[in-house]
Amino acid sequence: MSKLPSDQNQTAIGRHVAFVGAGPGDPELLTRKAHNALLAADVVIYDRLVSRPILDLCRAGAIMVPVGKEGFGPSKSQQEINALLVAHAQNGVCVVRLKGGDPTVFGRLDEEIDALEPEGITWDIVPGITAASASVAAIGQSLTKRGRNQAVRYMTAHDMQGFAEHDWHTLAREGEVAAVYMGKRAARFVQGRMLMHGASPATPVSIVENASRPDQRIISSTLARLEADLAKAGLSGPALMFLGLAPRAAQMELQEGIAL
Amino acid sequence: MSKLPSDQNQTAIGRHVAFVGAGPGDPELLTRKAHNALLAADVVIYDRLVSRPILDLCRAGAIMVPVGKEGFGPSKSQQEINALLVAHAQNGVCVVRLKGGDPTVFGRLDEEIDALEPEGITWDIVPGITAASASVAAIGQSLTKRGRNQAVRYMTAHDMQGFAEHDWHTLAREGEVAAVYMGKRAARFVQGRMLMHGASPATPVSIVENASRPDQRIISSTLARLEADLAKAGLSGPALMFLGLAPRAAQMELQEGIAL
Ligand SMILES: C[S@@+](CC[C@H](N)C(=O)[O-])C[C@H]1O[C@@H](n2cnc3c(N)ncnc32)[C@H](O)[C@@H]1O
Ligand SMILES: C[S@@+](CC[C@H](N)C(=O)[O-])C[C@H]1O[C@@H](n2cnc3c(N)ncnc32)[C@H](O)[C@@H]1O
Repeated sequence: MSKLPSDQNQTAIGRHVAFVGAGPGDPELLTRKAHNALLAADVVIYDRLVSRPILDLCRAGAIMVPVGKEGFGPSKSQQEINALLVAHAQNGVCVVRLKGGDPTVFGRLDEEIDALEPEGITWDIVPGITAASASVAAIGQSLTKRGRNQAVRYMTAHDMQGFAEHDWHTLAREGEVAAVYMGKRAARFVQGRMLMHGASPATPVSIVENASRPDQRIISSTLARLEADLAKAGLSGPALMFLGLAPRAAQMELQEGIAL
Repeated sequence: MSKLPSDQNQTAIGRHVAFVGAGPGDPELLTRKAHNALLAADVVIYDRLVSRPILDLCRAGAIMVPVGKEGFGPSKSQQEINALLVAHAQNGVCVVRLKGGDPTVFGRLDEEIDALEPEGITWDIVPGITAASASVAAIGQSLTKRGRNQAVRYMTAHDMQGFAEHDWHTLAREGEVAAVYMGKRAARFVQGRMLMHGASPATPVSIVENASRPDQRIISSTLARLEADLAKAGLSGPALMFLGLAPRAAQMELQEGIAL
């Protein structure tokens, strides 16, 4: 068992990379452990998704290395990022690889670990609040609920080939809940697949843009209206889409309406 | 949109309950926001799953109210918990409802919110690190991985009627990953369903007990060996079961073995 990350000496300086979850953007949603890692870092290699107020928490003298990967503009390839990680770690300094949300959720973590291990560089993972948790808190719903759904799915609408295929048939059933990451441009595709597999056009869909940030926005839509509502909203920040969940306030108004 | 929780004045004292995620147990995995809520609390109503070191962070003068709900021993009914929340909030003091992990994941949050709203009590949700995030970090794997799985499921093996039914057919496919909450006593049921639906007996299964705590344990098993391995291990703490994931170290050894 000596190779398990939990057995590694996580505080040893040198030839070590800490993969740290930055959470969804609000610096208050950093864990204490992540915050301490930022305060101790000599080098911080970070994704574009990481918010400014979080970067501002890093140790004043730390070398800050942005590596794109989100949205538009030039970004480094995965190979370049891997090489950067190895090079900095080999200097024996304290390296933090800072990723948005939780590093284990759509974070390409494995590729980076695969690059470190052959070089004898150790690593550990500091979990973070993933976008789904912050987004569902913002709409006042649970990811799971007794009598509604005993399972929730985190999925992406993209894969290496383009749009990702899923169990649309199951997802289309009433009561199913899924959090769709990177779903903005795939909304029309998801809408089409869900309807094709028998989902009700009235299935609630909620979109949370910039969850936990000052510019957070909540859009309450349905499968039928999804494309039109998104076009109207004109999202520009990171957004999470929930299939099968309405914001609690909207749902309550609807139920009261029906009860009248 | 004025009814959305994000629009509520979260710092107003009186007639307000903060639902706070305590994370998996390591106090370092509390968010800064959760920590601040504990420091400000007058009353903390907490589940048994919340660890001692986290309870110790609460404001010295706070009234601490345990409400069971996990494991054995007497525990309060959901109705009693609801009544406690309402009674304390009506005193106009700062009430924190502290739940293990993330309050929106298998946390019965909705039942409690439903009890507050008719009384005009406001609320907000402070997300927490859910057990799956901490557990997957401990085994050095990602919840999702390009080319393996574009979706991950959080599920429970229990529901109101007993064992919960799921899409075993889909779950049984190679590359699928699921995090099973409250799965200890349902291991045999899950094993049977998965094999019945065509899953390979060699499908990796990892169990993480007491994730992020000093007594954390990792068990690397397979569908075929699951029941025997669990019987041998004799788990006593909270445990999360991953279907389709082996601890990274175990997987690497296997791959090296095959490469030889
Ligand atoms: C490459 S994935 C990384 C996910 C990240 N590791 C996590 O756990 O949240 C990026 C996607 O996460 C979602 N996301 C990240 N931060 C968000 C935020 N603050 N609000 C809404 N969605 C967010 C968006 O769907 C975005 O396209
Ligand atoms: C009622 S559920 C609550 C889950 C919690 N809201 C969360 O997000 O982690 C309780 C289950 O969570 C899992 N769990 C909670 N804390 C854990 C820990 N530290 N290690 C492993 N599993 C844990 C176990 O499966 C346990 O049976």
